[in-house]
Amino acid sequence: MTRSSPTPAIALHGGAGTIARSSLSPDQEKLYHAGLAGAVRAGQRVLEQGGNALDAVTEAVVALEDYPLFNAGHGAVYTRDGKHELDASIMDGRNLATGAVGCLRRIRNPVRAARIVMERSEYVFMVGEGADAFALEHGLAEVENAYFDTEGRHAQWLLVREEGGVALDHDAASRLAAKTKTPTDAGRKFGTVGAVAIDREGNLAAATSTGGMTNKHSGRIGDSPLIGAGCYANNRTVAISATGTGEVFVRTVAAHDISARMEYAGASLAQACQQVIMEKLPPLGGRGGIVAIDHLGNVLLPFNTEGMYRGWARGSETPITGIYA
Amino acid sequence: MTRSSPTPAIALHGGAGTIARSSLSPDQEKLYHAGLAGAVRAGQRVLEQGGNALDAVTEAVVALEDYPLFNAGHGAVYTRDGKHELDASIMDGRNLATGAVGCLRRIRNPVRAARIVMERSEYVFMVGEGADAFALEHGLAEVENAYFDTEGRHAQWLLVREEGGVALDHDAASRLAAKTKTPTDAGRKFGTVGAVAIDREGNLAAATSTGGMTNKHSGRIGDSPLIGAGCYANNRTVAISATGTGEVFVRTVAAHDISARMEYAGASLAQACQQVIMEKLPPLGGRGGIVAIDHLGNVLLPFNTEGMYRGWARGSETPITGIYA
Repeated sequence: MTRSSPTPAIALHGGAGTIARSSLSPDQEKLYHAGLAGAVRAGQRVLEQGGNALDAVTEAVVALEDYPLFNAGHGAVYTRDGKHELDASIMDGRNLATGAVGCLRRIRNPVRAARIVMERSEYVFMVGEGADAFALEHGLAEVENAYFDTEGRHAQWLLVREEGGVALDHDAASRLAAKTKTPTDAGRKFGTVGAVAIDREGNLAAATSTGGMTNKHSGRIGDSPLIGAGCYANNRTVAISATGTGEVFVRTVAAHDISARMEYAGASLAQACQQVIMEKLPPLGGRGGIVAIDHLGNVLLPFNTEGMYRGWARGSETPITGIYA
Repeated sequence: MTRSSPTPAIALHGGAGTIARSSLSPDQEKLYHAGLAGAVRAGQRVLEQGGNALDAVTEAVVALEDYPLFNAGHGAVYTRDGKHELDASIMDGRNLATGAVGCLRRIRNPVRAARIVMERSEYVFMVGEGADAFALEHGLAEVENAYFDTEGRHAQWLLVREEGGVALDHDAASRLAAKTKTPTDAGRKFGTVGAVAIDREGNLAAATSTGGMTNKHSGRIGDSPLIGAGCYANNRTVAISATGTGEVFVRTVAAHDISARMEYAGASLAQACQQVIMEKLPPLGGRGGIVAIDHLGNVLLPFNTEGMYRGWARGSETPITGIYA
């Protein structure tokens, strides 16, 4: 295997945070592993058929958006107004092309809207009603905002609202689990989703999608749709999708920082991840993790939290999935 | 003067682009120089009185937002719907705190809204109606969207709309100038505004504000409110505010890229600016410039276009302003 023909690979996450082993039953764990493995296979199929990294991350993230247990698309958390506002981004490492959307309310798969922005507009970022309208103008499927509703998220929102705060998805879920101890708690522990891939041409791509924070003020945007913060891909260095306390990933421009350490300081992917995820973010209150594949095909899934829903596969190998550290 | 007590300085821009010398009369030039010098002095006053860099860039950008000749606040360009949607950001180099807003329609000074997000919320970025509502909840002055109207911008919008495109502010202005050759053309050549400062404690700050692109689709956001793209400040390296083809500044994470080259590759501010503004952006179609002050107090205002409205001052010196290369 030469460098010009790397083994295709895909890695993805379904959120990171306080994922207590005690709060998930074996059956609940199985549902997560199934969702993660299904999304890995969706991306893997694209790569096996000779498709490119961009299509692979798109299909993997669509699968995660459609799976109700993850905080993106169907199953997204609720805003303070009891609605859903969805953010997503995508980036093509071949040419640094990118598209992102924020505060969508009516598009079933936000990552497809991000891709429409990238491929069919002269813009890279659109938000709010204008973004919904733009995606509809370009033929994406419209849904009612209630399409994103799930019972578990609604209960999570009621709890956080009662406490008068906002919460990262996984933290709200843990509080709910601690409070209610019901078997359905498992359905509420998630976060942002995202995927990175390398195809057989050695091209990198990344995509990220989220419902944001439970009980967030309408209009809040975190790192997920921000290029360089929650999503970045550059064939010279690395493809990254992030999850966690978005605000700190924005302040540190975390994904681009890892890429820059590789490009300018000669750091390996592992060194750059150690410096940013394990050393730089925690003192600022930055909890979370990333999935990353570098230009050599190295796959890394580091996180500084108790757990991160994650999965990956190289070539035609069976997907490997994980939840806890 | 020791390094621990640098001379305070402020630098700002009012947009970069095709600013043809032939299209500005001496009287029109004077209006630009006056607006730029007034904004420099607004920031300078803060610094002279011992205020910090964050307050200095806030007041300088407020002055530019209020001045009708620049594309931010009053005097902002029109969207496709004939409205104004305003974006702004601010960053504090001391602690990487940041706040940003996108697609505001009802707040007189978007940079103040960005600062409210930074200081009074747990978020770093808010957009659309939710952002307007948040700023109003925190006491900022509400204006009708028509407050941002100016005759010159309206004429510019009608021209671009007639041609069926979108345009960077300065390009639209040049087309209008070429077409109409009226003495009022000068009022239509501008872009994003922004400021950077260093205070006597050596702290850095940056702020950026814009009305975006003429005839843009509602919901479009460029680099101005994106941390690491159009705005960045870090006491370890540099404060930067950018202006130009926003999409390319987003794709290259341009402001953070300059900072990263200084931090990780040991580049000087001048070297990093040369590499990014003069070498990296143009092949991607990235036209524009930045104002930058590094942690040593070096001031640089590089641009790869025919002109950039700009001004700066060190200590109590008389502000220096410029338009052409």
